[in-house]
Amino acid sequence: MTLTPPDVIDRAWCVELDAHDPLARFRDRFDCDDDLMYLDGNSLGRLPRATPQRLRTLVEQEWGRGLVRGWTESGWMHSPRRLGDKIARLIGAGEDEVLVTDTTSVDIFKVATAALMARPQRPVILTEPGNFPTDLYSASGIAALLPHVSVRRVQRHELRDALDAGVGLLLLTHVDFRTGERHDMRGLTAAARDAGALALWDLSHSTGAIPLDLARDGVELAVGCGYKYLNGGPGAPAFLHVTRALQHELANPVRGWLGHESPFTFETEYRAASGIRQWLSGSPPVMGIAALEVAVDMFLEVERHSLAEKAASLTELFIRLADARLAAHGFEVITPREPERRGAQVSLRHDQGYPIMRALIARGAIGDFRDPDVCRFGFAPLYTRYIDVWDAVEHMAEVVSGGEHRNPEHAQRGFIT
Amino acid sequence: MTLTPPDVIDRAWCVELDAHDPLARFRDRFDCDDDLMYLDGNSLGRLPRATPQRLRTLVEQEWGRGLVRGWTESGWMHSPRRLGDKIARLIGAGEDEVLVTDTTSVDIFKVATAALMARPQRPVILTEPGNFPTDLYSASGIAALLPHVSVRRVQRHELRDALDAGVGLLLLTHVDFRTGERHDMRGLTAAARDAGALALWDLSHSTGAIPLDLARDGVELAVGCGYKYLNGGPGAPAFLHVTRALQHELANPVRGWLGHESPFTFETEYRAASGIRQWLSGSPPVMGIAALEVAVDMFLEVERHSLAEKAASLTELFIRLADARLAAHGFEVITPREPERRGAQVSLRHDQGYPIMRALIARGAIGDFRDPDVCRFGFAPLYTRYIDVWDAVEHMAEVVSGGEHRNPEHAQRGFIT
Repeated sequence: MTLTPPDVIDRAWCVELDAHDPLARFRDRFDCDDDLMYLDGNSLGRLPRATPQRLRTLVEQEWGRGLVRGWTESGWMHSPRRLGDKIARLIGAGEDEVLVTDTTSVDIFKVATAALMARPQRPVILTEPGNFPTDLYSASGIAALLPHVSVRRVQRHELRDALDAGVGLLLLTHVDFRTGERHDMRGLTAAARDAGALALWDLSHSTGAIPLDLARDGVELAVGCGYKYLNGGPGAPAFLHVTRALQHELANPVRGWLGHESPFTFETEYRAASGIRQWLSGSPPVMGIAALEVAVDMFLEVERHSLAEKAASLTELFIRLADARLAAHGFEVITPREPERRGAQVSLRHDQGYPIMRALIARGAIGDFRDPDVCRFGFAPLYTRYIDVWDAVEHMAEVVSGGEHRNPEHAQRGFIT
Repeated sequence: MTLTPPDVIDRAWCVELDAHDPLARFRDRFDCDDDLMYLDGNSLGRLPRATPQRLRTLVEQEWGRGLVRGWTESGWMHSPRRLGDKIARLIGAGEDEVLVTDTTSVDIFKVATAALMARPQRPVILTEPGNFPTDLYSASGIAALLPHVSVRRVQRHELRDALDAGVGLLLLTHVDFRTGERHDMRGLTAAARDAGALALWDLSHSTGAIPLDLARDGVELAVGCGYKYLNGGPGAPAFLHVTRALQHELANPVRGWLGHESPFTFETEYRAASGIRQWLSGSPPVMGIAALEVAVDMFLEVERHSLAEKAASLTELFIRLADARLAAHGFEVITPREPERRGAQVSLRHDQGYPIMRALIARGAIGDFRDPDVCRFGFAPLYTRYIDVWDAVEHMAEVVSGGEHRNPEHAQRGFIT
C-alpha cells in the first residue's frame, strides 16, 4: 500500500483503501451481504460462492450416481492427503507432511500423545493457562490416561525458563484466542528443540489469517482448524502436520483401518502406513473435505505478502480508530500494537463488553465476546473491507454513547456467537 | 408376507414380491437408477432424495446468511445430541444415551479406552481375529498406549470360555463384515457382565439393516457407522452409545472444549459435561450431521418388524437363488441360513471371486469383494427390490458361464469398491 494516511482518518479514506486493496477482488468470491459488518471470520469463516455447486456435484453426482465407486473414481479415498498437500503449500510445510482428518481436538490428542510416547523420559506437557481450552483439556485428558504424564502451566513470559529436562512437549496456540497476541513460534520452537522437547503448535487462529512458513520456522508438529479463517464451513475437518523427520518416530495412538499400510486387504495385524497417512483413523468426512478444498484452492491464488499486509493494515486501522473514537467510551485495546506480534484479530476490553457486543450484533456488526470482558474482532483478509472496520467502530461508539447496551434484553447471558 | 413361494422361483415371483412389499414406497425416497442392481448399501448407502435440498438450505441459508449465528439459531450446537436421541429410538437406547460424533474408529478408541480405565484390575481386551480391522487396530493401539493392557483374540466359539477374571472389555462387531453372521449380542453381553467385564458392540453392519433393541438386550456400550445402511453419505459421522448407568463411571479420554460442562465460559480446568455430551471432543461436523439426520428421520417412519422381515426375506431369496443357480458354478454360501443368525448381508465364496465381482460390477450389479475369496452382497431393506436380487443372480450366472471373468482387465488388483 503506497497511500499516505491522513492525520485524521475518515470514512472517505477507508473507501480509498478499499479501492486500492489488491485483495478486493476476492470479496466477490464469497457470499457477502453488504449490510453486514462481519468481523467474526476467526470464529466461522464466510461461505465461498463456489462451495454450494461443489457440494451439489459431490452429493448428487458423485454420491447419488457414483455410489460406492466414488471412493476411487471421485478420489474420495485420497482426499485427506490431497487436501493436506494443498494446505501444506499454504503453511510452508512439505509434501506428505499434512493430513486433513478429524477435529482439532482429536488431532491434538493424537499428536500430543504420540509426542509424549516418543519421549518417555520427559513426561511433562508445558503450556500456558491462557491456551485455548481444548488444548488444555486435551493435555489434562492425556495426563489422566497416562499416569507418568503431567501438565505444567506457566505464564507466557516464563515458558522458556520452564523448558527443563522433564518437558517432552511444548503445547501452544500460535495466536491467542482472547487477545490476538502472536507467539514467537520460531524462537519458542528452537528453544524447545534446544531443551530436548518437541513443540506442537495449534494454528487454528493463524491459518488463512497471517502467512505461515513452518519449514522456515522449524515447526515439526502442528494442528489447525478448517472452519475459521480457512472458510471450510461449520465443523469443517481439521488438519495435522507431522514433519517428515518425525514420521518414523511418532506413531498415531488412535489406530484405524485407513491408517493401515494396506487398508483393503483387511489384515488382522496393524501395520502403519508410511508417510502422513498413518495419522488417519476412520473414513474421511468426504463432504467436509470437499467444502474445505474449495476454500483452500482459493487461498492458493493469494499472494502471501498481500495476506500479511492486509491483515496488518485492517487491524492497524481498527486499533487507530479504537484509540481515537472508543477509548473515551471505556474501551481498552489489549492486542499488541506491533503488527508482527498479533494475528488478524483485535480485542477490546470493556466492563460492559457483553451487552455492548449484543447490541452491536443487533445492529449488524458481528464480533464475539469472551469472558470476562473481551470483545473480539477478526479481520479475515480475503473478504473484510476497510469500510467494514470504519462502520463497526461507528456503531460501537453509537451503542455506548446512546446507552443502547443498557437495554435489559442485551444483558441476557448465554452463548452469543 | 402372506404369499406362498412357488417350488421354482422365477422373475415373475420377484415382481410379485415387490408388488406386495410394505416398504416398497421407501424406494422412491432414494435417488435410484432402475438399471443398477445396487447390493452394496452395507458399504455406502444410497442418497435420500431429500438430502440435497437439506444441504442446500444448510449451506446457503444457515451458513451463508446466518454465519456464526447458526450455532444457536440453526441448532448446530445441539445437533450431535439431537440426532443421537433420534438414533437412540432406532436402536432401542434411551434419551441422552447416544451421541453423533467423530468416526467409528475414534469412537471405538474413546469408549474402549474409557472402559479399560474403569476396570484397572482387568486389563484384557477380548475380541476375535475376524473382527472388523478397525476394531482390531484400535484395540492394538490402546494396548500400545497403555502398558498394562493386552489384546486376546480367540475364535468366536471360544469367546464365552475366554471371559476370565482378566477381561475388562469384550469388543465385538454384531454382524460380521465378511460373512454376515450375527452374534448373539444379548447372550454375549450377559456373559460378559456375569464375568465382570463390559461389552462394546460395533453396530456398523447392523444399524438400519436389522432391528436393534439395546435396552432389551442389556447392551451398555456401542458404536456405529453413519454411511452404510443409515445412508448418511460418504464419511458420515458415527455414533456412540453409553448407557446412563455407566455415564458416571466412564470418562472420555479425548477431552475437548465441547465436552466441557460449560464450553462458552472457556474455563482453564476441565469439567466433564453431565450426560452423553461429555463424549464430544471438538466441534460437530455440521454438514455430515445434517445429511445423516435426513436419513435417520426416514428410518423413524419405518415399522421395525417390516425392516426385519424384509432383510430376512431379501437375503432368503438370494440364498435360495444362489443354491439353485450359482452352486453349480462354484459359489458357496458362507452366511448362516437361519435369518436370525445373519444381518442383511449374504456372502458367497468363489476362488475366482475377485474377477467375477469386477465383471459383475461392469454389468451394473454392484456388490463388493473381501480377501481372499468373498463376494459380499448387502440388501438394504429400504430400497432394494426383489427383482434386483433376481437380476444380480442372473448376471452372476451369465458372467461365470460365459467366462467373462477371465477377461484380463478384471484380474487387475486394487481397491474395487
